[in-house]
Amino acid sequence: MKAARLFAYDKPLRLVDAETPRLKNPADVIVRVTGAGVCHTDLHIVEGVWKEKVQVTLPYTLGHENAGIVEEVGPAATSVKRGEKVILHPVITDGLCRACRIGEDMHCENLVFPGITADGGFAQFIRSSERSLVKLNSRTTSGSNVVVQGVGGLGHIALQLLRCMTNAYITASDIAESKLRLAEKMGAHRVIDARRDPVKQVMEFTKNQGAEVVIDLVGNDQTLANGMRMLRKGGSLIIVGYGGTANLKAIDMIFSEFSVLGSLVGNWDELRELIELTRQGKVRVLTQKGKLDEVNDMLDQLKKGTLEGRGVVIP
Amino acid sequence: MKAARLFAYDKPLRLVDAETPRLKNPADVIVRVTGAGVCHTDLHIVEGVWKEKVQVTLPYTLGHENAGIVEEVGPAATSVKRGEKVILHPVITDGLCRACRIGEDMHCENLVFPGITADGGFAQFIRSSERSLVKLNSRTTSGSNVVVQGVGGLGHIALQLLRCMTNAYITASDIAESKLRLAEKMGAHRVIDARRDPVKQVMEFTKNQGAEVVIDLVGNDQTLANGMRMLRKGGSLIIVGYGGTANLKAIDMIFSEFSVLGSLVGNWDELRELIELTRQGKVRVLTQKGKLDEVNDMLDQLKKGTLEGRGVVIP
Amino acid sequence: MKAARLFAYDKPLRLVDAETPRLKNPADVIVRVTGAGVCHTDLHIVEGVWKEKVQVTLPYTLGHENAGIVEEVGPAATSVKRGEKVILHPVITDGLCRACRIGEDMHCENLVFPGITADGGFAQFIRSSERSLVKLNSRTTSGSNVVVQGVGGLGHIALQLLRCMTNAYITASDIAESKLRLAEKMGAHRVIDARRDPVKQVMEFTKNQGAEVVIDLVGNDQTLANGMRMLRKGGSLIIVGYGGTANLKAIDMIFSEFSVLGSLVGNWDELRELIELTRQGKVRVLTQKGKLDEVNDMLDQLKKGTLEGRGVVIP
Amino acid sequence: MKAARLFAYDKPLRLVDAETPRLKNPADVIVRVTGAGVCHTDLHIVEGVWKEKVQVTLPYTLGHENAGIVEEVGPAATSVKRGEKVILHPVITDGLCRACRIGEDMHCENLVFPGITADGGFAQFIRSSERSLVKLNSRTTSGSNVVVQGVGGLGHIALQLLRCMTNAYITASDIAESKLRLAEKMGAHRVIDARRDPVKQVMEFTKNQGAEVVIDLVGNDQTLANGMRMLRKGGSLIIVGYGGTANLKAIDMIFSEFSVLGSLVGNWDELRELIELTRQGKVRVLTQKGKLDEVNDMLDQLKKGTLEGRGVVIP
Repeated sequence: MKAARLFAYDKPLRLVDAETPRLKNPADVIVRVTGAGVCHTDLHIVEGVWKEKVQVTLPYTLGHENAGIVEEVGPAATSVKRGEKVILHPVITDGLCRACRIGEDMHCENLVFPGITADGGFAQFIRSSERSLVKLNSRTTSGSNVVVQGVGGLGHIALQLLRCMTNAYITASDIAESKLRLAEKMGAHRVIDARRDPVKQVMEFTKNQGAEVVIDLVGNDQTLANGMRMLRKGGSLIIVGYGGTANLKAIDMIFSEFSVLGSLVGNWDELRELIELTRQGKVRVLTQKGKLDEVNDMLDQLKKGTLEGRGVVIP
Repeated sequence: MKAARLFAYDKPLRLVDAETPRLKNPADVIVRVTGAGVCHTDLHIVEGVWKEKVQVTLPYTLGHENAGIVEEVGPAATSVKRGEKVILHPVITDGLCRACRIGEDMHCENLVFPGITADGGFAQFIRSSERSLVKLNSRTTSGSNVVVQGVGGLGHIALQLLRCMTNAYITASDIAESKLRLAEKMGAHRVIDARRDPVKQVMEFTKNQGAEVVIDLVGNDQTLANGMRMLRKGGSLIIVGYGGTANLKAIDMIFSEFSVLGSLVGNWDELRELIELTRQGKVRVLTQKGKLDEVNDMLDQLKKGTLEGRGVVIP
Repeated sequence: MKAARLFAYDKPLRLVDAETPRLKNPADVIVRVTGAGVCHTDLHIVEGVWKEKVQVTLPYTLGHENAGIVEEVGPAATSVKRGEKVILHPVITDGLCRACRIGEDMHCENLVFPGITADGGFAQFIRSSERSLVKLNSRTTSGSNVVVQGVGGLGHIALQLLRCMTNAYITASDIAESKLRLAEKMGAHRVIDARRDPVKQVMEFTKNQGAEVVIDLVGNDQTLANGMRMLRKGGSLIIVGYGGTANLKAIDMIFSEFSVLGSLVGNWDELRELIELTRQGKVRVLTQKGKLDEVNDMLDQLKKGTLEGRGVVIP
Repeated sequence: MKAARLFAYDKPLRLVDAETPRLKNPADVIVRVTGAGVCHTDLHIVEGVWKEKVQVTLPYTLGHENAGIVEEVGPAATSVKRGEKVILHPVITDGLCRACRIGEDMHCENLVFPGITADGGFAQFIRSSERSLVKLNSRTTSGSNVVVQGVGGLGHIALQLLRCMTNAYITASDIAESKLRLAEKMGAHRVIDARRDPVKQVMEFTKNQGAEVVIDLVGNDQTLANGMRMLRKGGSLIIVGYGGTANLKAIDMIFSEFSVLGSLVGNWDELRELIELTRQGKVRVLTQKGKLDEVNDMLDQLKKGTLEGRGVVIP
């Protein structure tokens, strides 16, 4: 195959015929390179800056930011198939050392760095490993689903905070049509009518995984029970609204390692931040104003669920 | 003054003439209420739900989400003045217990909760405390300034990540006019020409505070030195680009409790997240493509600084 | 009063008569110095190293590691009294800026540093501020109480892990006398008989504060209910044992900002760490061994609560 | 082989002849069971509590806390060998899903739980997977090496804090024999004479890995340079002492993802905690006392390095 290789420091790369890489370890994957980034590190390698940092013998192929199509798959690699489009994480890691175990792959004790310590992607093919691949065709939903139950005075603010503070996929749930319309305006990616089995709806669009986080701004028996059943393994139910009781079977709590957290007001610094976000226009508080002697009317409206946004008394 | 007070559970509030609150403790502040939120908690209080949680004697004034104008200031309160617009954090805290010390004001050992355990804001005036106030007229810059040095292949991505992952005020610094224009397109709130004393510029718009975070994607002697000098107390310099040397005087490091952190590639899961953000349209990678035999040309362009975005070789 | 002051850089301090400090701000406290640490920073100050870092006019009194007895208390200071023994945190902070609010007092925007930027403790008296004092006579229980419910196969290991991984005050609760004895051997600071109102016992010795963490290794209805009622504001119930159901009133969860967390097994790296601690002798697993054909007997014993430590089948 | 299997809920296990497990996936490992814990979960399984949580067909073999000797190793498993003693992490995980990538193996999307969802360890042999094994013969040094440079007034306290707050392997380095003796008394696991190439010494006993954390309480050019060179990949140098300058090559910082952090005093709550630990007898501050008029002598001694522990002036 064609490859752009470094034969001598401080010299241009040479485009040569090189041996096509072959599978070596059981979980290896050969990728047909469709794009390889050109980076200052390539310049530094040519300049010899990396000579003392890593041991590598010239000539070799540069290119450490690679993408391509899976060409060949080792016998122990089960998560990718020939023909799939992949982006290659820059390093090959063992997945077994402590660093890999705790998510610090870059500190892997057996790190191989194609393009720096081994042949890289300025070539038609590159050898990588199953663990290094990110598949382009699989939309990741992990770490991304938040359900907000109740789009009232707090809920419509919560939606906006989630929008400007996270990249989560945000679902709002309410029993009133007008609140669902409000949720859409306030940035919810999806709204669900809580009168029609909201748990089932969440499970459907999350492919039976559930949501990482459910924020319950209603807090009655029903929403608390639903909230628990919407959670993904390791998920958290955050209780803000109250009035009801959550019945948590210990076996469910431990089996899925759920968390249930109560939240009252937030700290001073969080209020400061909220005000700052409002000033930046990222959060907009919808208010319905009344005079002091209208406070009982407003409380009635709140009870009936006909108040939109936050009721505010102006004394 | 007029106040809407609870005289009996399960009854409407009564609008009555109540005594105007007076300063009690040295750091107390009396606030003229200009708005008080109406919340489900008010309903719950009326229903008697809170009776068993807190000790309070009827009648008292509800209203725990308050904003207003400072009317009177206690002798020990130095940070607010009569006439200033303020939002009241819902609780009054002592600032001295361990909870307050570590930022968990809500767990203050001497918590007072106006509107729940004391007279609240459904009234013309309310007593609060200096510590509880957030002033509306002081734009907070704390926790919000990030400077990105170098708007190249990585820098233009970094800017977009900062935009969608933080609410920071983002400044981009570069020596090329075209890179500054690119930075603006990619979401920088401010660009600074690094040829004209960038440290001074940062210090000016941060009012001599400096930036919480500087990300150095260039990494030469000059940018490293500048990066350190741009930092705020407790700030962090994140080194991504390299080639130069940072000379850190230990006294500077300890006096301001700076952090200097090297970053190589990022973990697999961070790459996955970046791809996901690209798919969501929140990050756009600007590329300049070439064939494998053009790689040396691209490396030359990169060296000269004439490549815009990321160069990509298509083998 | 006598004070050791710096009159000129690179010269010895001079012991002179200096004006006794007086209260200036409402929360100031004058402390009679009973001990002042001598530190390399004092040498550096004398050498002039700090000249360019801070603005201070000679002469002034050095000494920034101070302890003493409260002599005089400003009108706004409520938490200390004349005659109390105190250690002075080295800096005077405002308690109002964002840094102080989030627990980063060292980055206070209005920091005063006695002994460096103001008169210090190489003197008979020093001016400090209420916020800077730590009282010696108040045993802090904050952040330190953990209750372990159930001293069986996991419980006796949990106690040892708490001993070697935290400085918490560890209480073990069980219904069997033999298990309480085992708990004492395994490092519990206190044991309580769970048959005699364990909640009341915990509340008594924590002075009605409750425990920061309760680990429930039993997980029946009773222990779950007790666990919740033992928690301090902001506390966490960690469920490991199961079989029962926890009924959480939402109002209790939000009022005290409790957390309830399920834990199943722990990660690979945690197992590795446990093995390492066992190797170091910090954790000792008590086992009762049997043959494969004795497994049903062992299960019976476990059910009856007569198995001590962990039963292990040797196939 | 012999196995204790569950044939019917609420019935005792039956000891039967079962088929010996065989390798199925490339990274599978067959382990000869030498010990299997008997746990309340086994009782719960027999009671049928788990029926609704997981799908499993009777009969099957219980036992989910297993240890043994490697019997047979799959072709893709490279990190274990026949004959090695291992403890089995309870679950088999894929190492490829997001949960595994970030260290949350328990939330693996393809979790297999021998003894609960598959045949367990109440048998002579069990099938596990390379990823699940912890080898008993490999002392893990990961996450455990801290080097303290300088055993003076702060250093001798730092050593004790490390002892009671971590399980790290603590090395103290100093140029004075008396300080090394003090370090040993204060809990250092190892002392090294800093006059004899301390970097080489650290590299030797860490098998060329380096230390996770170096705390530099001296802060001169030499200790700062040494500290950097002692660090492991991902390691942190914490600067407390000062006077010198650290020259950090950016390439070193990024290649190993080092952190360099300055620390000045610590927060109020940390001081409170230190005092509490002193009260508990876990930290003992060695002091050398003098009168106010002896302060210059003490400063001289400090300069010469002849002061042991902390010098304290008693005014």
